[in-house]
Amino acid sequence: MSIKEQMVQMAKEAKSVSKVLANLSSKEKDEALQKMSSLIQENREKIKEENKKDVEKAKIKGLSSAFIDRLTLNEKRIQRLSFSLEEIAKLEDPIGKIKSMWKRPNGLLIGKLVVPLGVIGIIYESRPNVTVEAAGLCFKSGNAVILKGGSEAINSNIVLVDILRQALKDLNLPQNIIQLIRTTSREAVGELLKLNEYIDVIIPRGGESLIQAVTENSTIPVIKHYKGVCHTFVEKDADLKMAEEICFNAKVQRPGVCNAMETLLVDKKIAKQFLPKMVERFKQAGVEIRGDELAQSMVGGIKKATEQDWFREYLDLILSVKIVDGIEEAIYHINHYGSGHSDAIVTQNYDKARKFLQEVDSAAVYVNASTRFTDGGEFGLGAEIGISTQKLHARGPMGAAELTSYKFIILGEGQIRT
Amino acid sequence: MSIKEQMVQMAKEAKSVSKVLANLSSKEKDEALQKMSSLIQENREKIKEENKKDVEKAKIKGLSSAFIDRLTLNEKRIQRLSFSLEEIAKLEDPIGKIKSMWKRPNGLLIGKLVVPLGVIGIIYESRPNVTVEAAGLCFKSGNAVILKGGSEAINSNIVLVDILRQALKDLNLPQNIIQLIRTTSREAVGELLKLNEYIDVIIPRGGESLIQAVTENSTIPVIKHYKGVCHTFVEKDADLKMAEEICFNAKVQRPGVCNAMETLLVDKKIAKQFLPKMVERFKQAGVEIRGDELAQSMVGGIKKATEQDWFREYLDLILSVKIVDGIEEAIYHINHYGSGHSDAIVTQNYDKARKFLQEVDSAAVYVNASTRFTDGGEFGLGAEIGISTQKLHARGPMGAAELTSYKFIILGEGQIRT
Repeated sequence: MSIKEQMVQMAKEAKSVSKVLANLSSKEKDEALQKMSSLIQENREKIKEENKKDVEKAKIKGLSSAFIDRLTLNEKRIQRLSFSLEEIAKLEDPIGKIKSMWKRPNGLLIGKLVVPLGVIGIIYESRPNVTVEAAGLCFKSGNAVILKGGSEAINSNIVLVDILRQALKDLNLPQNIIQLIRTTSREAVGELLKLNEYIDVIIPRGGESLIQAVTENSTIPVIKHYKGVCHTFVEKDADLKMAEEICFNAKVQRPGVCNAMETLLVDKKIAKQFLPKMVERFKQAGVEIRGDELAQSMVGGIKKATEQDWFREYLDLILSVKIVDGIEEAIYHINHYGSGHSDAIVTQNYDKARKFLQEVDSAAVYVNASTRFTDGGEFGLGAEIGISTQKLHARGPMGAAELTSYKFIILGEGQIRT
Repeated sequence: MSIKEQMVQMAKEAKSVSKVLANLSSKEKDEALQKMSSLIQENREKIKEENKKDVEKAKIKGLSSAFIDRLTLNEKRIQRLSFSLEEIAKLEDPIGKIKSMWKRPNGLLIGKLVVPLGVIGIIYESRPNVTVEAAGLCFKSGNAVILKGGSEAINSNIVLVDILRQALKDLNLPQNIIQLIRTTSREAVGELLKLNEYIDVIIPRGGESLIQAVTENSTIPVIKHYKGVCHTFVEKDADLKMAEEICFNAKVQRPGVCNAMETLLVDKKIAKQFLPKMVERFKQAGVEIRGDELAQSMVGGIKKATEQDWFREYLDLILSVKIVDGIEEAIYHINHYGSGHSDAIVTQNYDKARKFLQEVDSAAVYVNASTRFTDGGEFGLGAEIGISTQKLHARGPMGAAELTSYKFIILGEGQIRT
């Protein structure tokens, strides 16, 4: 079979079994998630073995230690995968709810019934935990899933998906509810993106080139999970001690994730007071600072930031710093250079806080808190499939409820239109 | 300027002024809608004059009388356009609402704030009333709009959009909040569909070829408004008198619209009892019947339906009829041949009703009512931009509330992540 034929077959299968899945009860779904969780526990050694193959190849290829870290599945991480499926089982089932129902003057009862999207394709990079969490959330929300992970994690992904499918088989459910594209050929994704007859939505999670390739080639609707170029703006009326703690946390606590701060904006009026101490603390934590000329003139040891720096998602202990002339310039900078992910203002001024919330065009806009909170769990939504950076369908952290659609149900007693 | 440059300029302008529009108060928006409404009233003669040019060209081209009817703007229809803008002004403003807000254990207050999508592109065929209603709804929901109507309505569209823009100008609002692609070149749409940097969503309204061309070429997210191949299934436990009234209404009351019935499915067990009388009534109303062999054998004067007929949206006094062996076959037929628009069951049996509601995968699923009710106004949503036949973002009738997104706002008092 050609790659194209393989993809069509997978997509057709997914669509076909999605109808079975859509009609499972909450109890049946939760039992299957529990089963998946225990099979992952039972197969810890096998998972580690397969993961080791990927890790060794990555080392031979000379991939970065950060990359290898994200790729590695140790005992603790496998425990966490198993646990995350249990947590998903405990979440409320979004499917089958009536969101609202009303009566029309002619007596028709009209309601919005929550239904699965159908078939979801998820294309992501080399973190094998995404394989399990994405499959679990799609399953919970009644969607068949086709997974395409990074080629560097192929052995890990295969063993994990085989375990999830075994759980389905043990419970007499169709295994093709969860499918993995097992070829590492790039052609496969290209073919998949054209199958809008069978697949309802594509979720790409990754960097610029992945997102761009998917957006340009997909005839299926896409929900983008793009990079996080997150800002913190320390406004002139900020509590400077609070600002220092928030900025330090946003940059240093976990620099390799999308909700970490990449650019610090400081109001000119308090820059001399705030910046030297802040920069000193960052330097002690090993953060490299790149600043505009004004910042450079205020504090020593700051490299020159280029125009490109303002667009960068470092995912590392690097921070760009810009001194701005008030809130207008800060908002302009964020909307122009940011990625619409997470941005914060630190201020005690009510009007400025309100203006920032209103005018910053990002998925998550903060007052007086670290951008590091942008996360389905931290927001109280349960597990997340990722963080949408687009406006259509869902924006920000997406949980099981965001993987649904609805249909109108209309209950009559013989009404006709006149 | 090349067509490409023109499109980029329009899209950039739209994005730029969308920020002004997003921050207008409800009062300012409603005043502008009122102004648009009265300028349409005042310019009735001019509108009729320009519309006449389009109608005459269409007659010379020999376009169908149904087409010319949809194209024509008479006194009454212009009144209705003016009135529809007043109605939109009276709708609740969806923007700026907090959909929900909750407090996390760490004290963070998290809310979902409703915001406009940004810039919407609407591509539609030759009904000039869409120009006004779409512009009005986009404006109400805080979205800049780029309209591309059918080339046969170009003079009508130009005069209508000029009037709407005059209203914006009179109130010192940026005119480019409402833009019309004034060239009839097909290249323009092709270029527009690539401008995902500036445009947030494309809504194509029309037939198969339009929808397909947009889906295949757009790098911007699309909300499809596709055809309505609507079914009514007369189940064996139906009240047959009720079924007759519902079927007659669904087919005959206004056959040229997307929520009219195109296929009648009749349970084998009651077909002999129900069909002859029903067919007779349809024939008296001038409906041509195309049926499967079983239907042909039961009633005289039924043409043979081909496989293609089951997929057809006639938009005319033509009906295809199939005798089915129970609800399973009916549901299979609807999900296979239908377009996911509006489908009804007529039955007094509770279990069958419930099964039909659950398993028919359409935007609007009815029990004991005519499919003709699928409409924003009839559903109580106010005016509609159209009827989405896809699952992502919005499904079924879309009003102003469906033209919005949200952002998370997070109000802290110094919270950091540990």
